[in-house]
Amino acid sequence: MNQFNFYNPTKIIFGRDRFNELDHLVPKDAKVLVLYGGGSVKKFGTLDRVLAALPNREILEFGGIEANPRYETLMKAVDVVRAEKIDFLLAVGGGSVIDGTKFIALASYYDGDGLDLLRDRSITANLKQALPLAAVLTLAATGSEMNRGGVVSSPIGKLGFGNDLVFPKFSLVDPSLTFTLPETQVANGVVDTFVHVMEQYMTYPAEGRFQDRTSEGILKTLIEIGRATIDNPTDYDLRANLVWCATMGLNGLIGAGVPQDWATHRIGHELTALFGIDHAKTLAIIMPSLWNIMRDTKREKLLQYGERVLNITTGSEEDRIDQIIETTRQFFESLGIKTRLSDYGIGADQIDSILAALELHNMTALGERGEITLEISRKILEGAI
Amino acid sequence: MNQFNFYNPTKIIFGRDRFNELDHLVPKDAKVLVLYGGGSVKKFGTLDRVLAALPNREILEFGGIEANPRYETLMKAVDVVRAEKIDFLLAVGGGSVIDGTKFIALASYYDGDGLDLLRDRSITANLKQALPLAAVLTLAATGSEMNRGGVVSSPIGKLGFGNDLVFPKFSLVDPSLTFTLPETQVANGVVDTFVHVMEQYMTYPAEGRFQDRTSEGILKTLIEIGRATIDNPTDYDLRANLVWCATMGLNGLIGAGVPQDWATHRIGHELTALFGIDHAKTLAIIMPSLWNIMRDTKREKLLQYGERVLNITTGSEEDRIDQIIETTRQFFESLGIKTRLSDYGIGADQIDSILAALELHNMTALGERGEITLEISRKILEGAI
Repeated sequence: MNQFNFYNPTKIIFGRDRFNELDHLVPKDAKVLVLYGGGSVKKFGTLDRVLAALPNREILEFGGIEANPRYETLMKAVDVVRAEKIDFLLAVGGGSVIDGTKFIALASYYDGDGLDLLRDRSITANLKQALPLAAVLTLAATGSEMNRGGVVSSPIGKLGFGNDLVFPKFSLVDPSLTFTLPETQVANGVVDTFVHVMEQYMTYPAEGRFQDRTSEGILKTLIEIGRATIDNPTDYDLRANLVWCATMGLNGLIGAGVPQDWATHRIGHELTALFGIDHAKTLAIIMPSLWNIMRDTKREKLLQYGERVLNITTGSEEDRIDQIIETTRQFFESLGIKTRLSDYGIGADQIDSILAALELHNMTALGERGEITLEISRKILEGAI
Repeated sequence: MNQFNFYNPTKIIFGRDRFNELDHLVPKDAKVLVLYGGGSVKKFGTLDRVLAALPNREILEFGGIEANPRYETLMKAVDVVRAEKIDFLLAVGGGSVIDGTKFIALASYYDGDGLDLLRDRSITANLKQALPLAAVLTLAATGSEMNRGGVVSSPIGKLGFGNDLVFPKFSLVDPSLTFTLPETQVANGVVDTFVHVMEQYMTYPAEGRFQDRTSEGILKTLIEIGRATIDNPTDYDLRANLVWCATMGLNGLIGAGVPQDWATHRIGHELTALFGIDHAKTLAIIMPSLWNIMRDTKREKLLQYGERVLNITTGSEEDRIDQIIETTRQFFESLGIKTRLSDYGIGADQIDSILAALELHNMTALGERGEITLEISRKILEGAI
């Protein structure tokens, strides 16, 4: 097991109808900015329930944070924070709103060019002050409700950032708030969670037995409940299991002390930036091909996953790995998520532009061992057509 | 899944030889009381390494905290804290030292009779101030390094307490510090962790799929490595896996959102208080008999554990439950832990005194459904002879 630090101070308030607890969770004397995305939190009444739960406070609203939140939008919120002397941010939404709110929390205290915070991870990681923030979660996928990072789409790319200061102070996680999501967003959440776990698991053995088995438990659960929670959107227990797995899949727990990959995410981010493909769908496109190309360095963990999660135990190692990749692809497809670039109208002629974007963002040595050069990324993309 | 709150702000610093990080983890301006138990932290140099890592600070020491820490000893430390105006507590040891330090942290700010904090859990839970504390862990078992509770032996019994204020600010968890432990203490740690998990798992199904599978992962790991880490005490990876499972087994994670039992602990505490039997050994005595007596209410989870952890899948349900109990008992015995009261010289003639102690401490409706009355406890004890 590798050495590690583990720290996660976010308080999770999990369960149905717990809005009334917001009043004591949000500081009484705070001037609060409530942030949200499009109209769904209005349409389904979530925003009204949040506002009603926070009486006798000065509250401003900032709506319109997009999926894959845009830097320009977030900087407008920073202007509001500064002009109005906001001292608490409350995100109401999914990963994009929460990620965006984290960026606002940091950028509000940063005097330089806000793009620095995306351009140079070390600048962001060393910031010493941020606005406190919290979240009311309406979509299970990113784990942003219980972690220290986010991803922002900006003129210099779709890029990540992180700092302990942006752990939400609390997150209200009510699975029933996700009942009204469109089917494709639930499917995206299942795939996003599945690949988050894989980025921390599908590397090489490192004697992290708790970490491996906890990851395998989430993967098994997602396979068990993924299709079922899409088909039965108001089944509380199915959805609660998806939501809790999504939170646990990216809160630092399963990745502590073991190698991590994240190449699928890095390549996927370019697909979203260039072609607007949903984040989760980019992961479903890239990961199966990446496993195929990297099957030698990932061999032991691929076989372990096959045996422990998929019960694939017969055939030669190559045959089993083929089965493992195909079974995983079929799982994504069974959720209604297409797994080929060509399904999204992307052909071989676009690969150079994707590689150029990777190069621009210094994504030239990806994967758990830095072995995924641009040439390897080309093969992965060619295999994903 | 039940509704729940999850909160755990302890920072874990995990790995070998990280003492040099203590200097920035412990506040620079703090007057520190370093607390420890018997001579082993002196004998093996751990105390010296801690003190050397904290230069230019005012540091006092308080040694002699016993296994099953005694209230009278802890109140002497409270006197030191008050007289010397200590403002940071650093526990160096295992669960007893850390539990004791937590009690000191709370009692130092409590003006009433210190026994109140054990007599009435609600008094302790509502305290608003405590000294900050941290830990350097030398024994894996109790999870105290990453939770909010402790157990103290007092004139009114061996009793638990808890408050969010006593989460350690950080815990330095170096598996190599446990290499020098006597074999029986390592075995105790394996059993203690195993039963901590079971108290949060072996109840009834509650749609906590992440929780169940994470518990099952710890149980499998303990069965895999338990004997091996006793036999190979300086194998870092084996011990690191034990240590991390012990921390994860009682930090709130696996018990969030699912029913919990704790009857084995409650009855076990009386055996320690009356007869001085090691805590873990009391658990190994009580749990198999408790499962046998409570096999109807625990049936589904017993069978799930049998199938998923022990691979016991054939025979009638009663046969399988018999096999499951016997296999678990044999696992404890394989670690050198005896599982019968009679192994410790306790006979049927002592049962009345154990029941009287349970009654005195209001332990008359134990278990996940409060079904374990004194009459049921009698049967459990009779079955444990």
